[in-house]
Amino acid sequence: MSEAYVHGYEPHESERLQTQAGTLVDLLHRDTRYPPGSRVLEAGCGVGAQTVTLARQSPDAWFTSIDISAESVAAARRATDAAGLANVEFQQADLFALPFAPESFDHVFVCFVLEHLARPVEALAILRDLLKPGGTLTVIEGDHGSAYFHPDSAAAHQAIQAQAELQRCAGGNVLIGRQLHPLMVAAGLDRVQVSPRMVYVDGSRPDLIDGFTRKTFTAMIEGVRESAIAGGVIEADAFDAGIRALHRTAEDDGVFCYTFFKGVGQKR
Amino acid sequence: MSEAYVHGYEPHESERLQTQAGTLVDLLHRDTRYPPGSRVLEAGCGVGAQTVTLARQSPDAWFTSIDISAESVAAARRATDAAGLANVEFQQADLFALPFAPESFDHVFVCFVLEHLARPVEALAILRDLLKPGGTLTVIEGDHGSAYFHPDSAAAHQAIQAQAELQRCAGGNVLIGRQLHPLMVAAGLDRVQVSPRMVYVDGSRPDLIDGFTRKTFTAMIEGVRESAIAGGVIEADAFDAGIRALHRTAEDDGVFCYTFFKGVGQKR
Repeated sequence: MSEAYVHGYEPHESERLQTQAGTLVDLLHRDTRYPPGSRVLEAGCGVGAQTVTLARQSPDAWFTSIDISAESVAAARRATDAAGLANVEFQQADLFALPFAPESFDHVFVCFVLEHLARPVEALAILRDLLKPGGTLTVIEGDHGSAYFHPDSAAAHQAIQAQAELQRCAGGNVLIGRQLHPLMVAAGLDRVQVSPRMVYVDGSRPDLIDGFTRKTFTAMIEGVRESAIAGGVIEADAFDAGIRALHRTAEDDGVFCYTFFKGVGQKR
Repeated sequence: MSEAYVHGYEPHESERLQTQAGTLVDLLHRDTRYPPGSRVLEAGCGVGAQTVTLARQSPDAWFTSIDISAESVAAARRATDAAGLANVEFQQADLFALPFAPESFDHVFVCFVLEHLARPVEALAILRDLLKPGGTLTVIEGDHGSAYFHPDSAAAHQAIQAQAELQRCAGGNVLIGRQLHPLMVAAGLDRVQVSPRMVYVDGSRPDLIDGFTRKTFTAMIEGVRESAIAGGVIEADAFDAGIRALHRTAEDDGVFCYTFFKGVGQKR
């Protein structure tokens, strides 16, 4: 987590991440429940978008949620406080220099973190070492190459590519979702099972049009406008045409598809 | 169905289509069951890859399966005979000149047909007219834009694009899966519901590596080698590099993703 972060830290960005979590909670997290008394590390909690769901779904498990940004940790703490959750403690920490002894946790949870790391296998191996034998590591990541839509649009793909390029320059990888299985196996995890979680949005699903196509995916791409243009990754006109094309897919006769990947592996 | 057909009619191609149907039966067809006594039209049955499953899953429904190719109809008849099915009758017929009166059927089923048609909405409207009020139209299509994999490879995408280009020149559209909802709505169908059926293949799923990545998808692309090169759509070296890259995704640390779309709509 030493790399620069591509998504913003601004208030509206925090709102976007919360909206995203709200729309996707069931799809991504419904099958993550930890037993009473278990100790769970959430590595890279960000503003707590997933923390609230995790802690609420496993009220008798104990969560330690860390993030490299003290500001994010503070926002995450406010989010769990507002939700009345007492089973989470927070700590500012770097994933590559964690203040925990080996085998400190029963389970580890990582969501939307590997996409920002230049050394994802190393990060996974560090987290594996923190697990007790038999403990599980759960990883959730998106994959921008899984984004396709109707009407198809070269301009939209170019705008998405601009975001991907920024993230790549910061050491990240927006195509990481599809790679979870080989990455987790390479990190020495056992019994790795990956399941795709596809978001499919058409005119019959107005909640997802608004909550996912517009306020999650398109908003994420839109959020890098200034840095992409300033960084010379794309021209302003081309970027704006791409954003318009993404909004076009949110009309009644449009369709938008995106897939998240969830992997669970075990420490031997 | 007056357009040229892009997939081959050769014996090995027929085998490929049967293998594909075998691997995908549960994913695509598990929720298609027709009530006893209902009359069902299967439009574009090809070599009967889906017909056997359809007729077996609804043993007390009556199927009429048509295809524009007399040779395919003969192969489909052999397939249902071999399966001991007595609830299917076959007929050689053109979808755009069908010998049936309006409202002849309780349900209509179309699988991997629209992708070959220049006028898919017109075809759907013709099929809708054959339905009794309240009857359903079920449509299944793939979408080549949903194919992504690890390792990612520009060469592989180029080979896929060559197949797409051939199909486009023949009047077809390999990106039709994602468009099912708007197409079915445009054809005047009611209560249209589309569900994606994603095939996800990683090293832990050897059956799918063989049955889908190799023998279904890669074999389909490989099958157009001669016509793509002869048609000047791609150079032989580039095509072969793409095929090697697709086979690379079938290794233990590779991943392959593809999504089919299934739509069901009703006649008012």
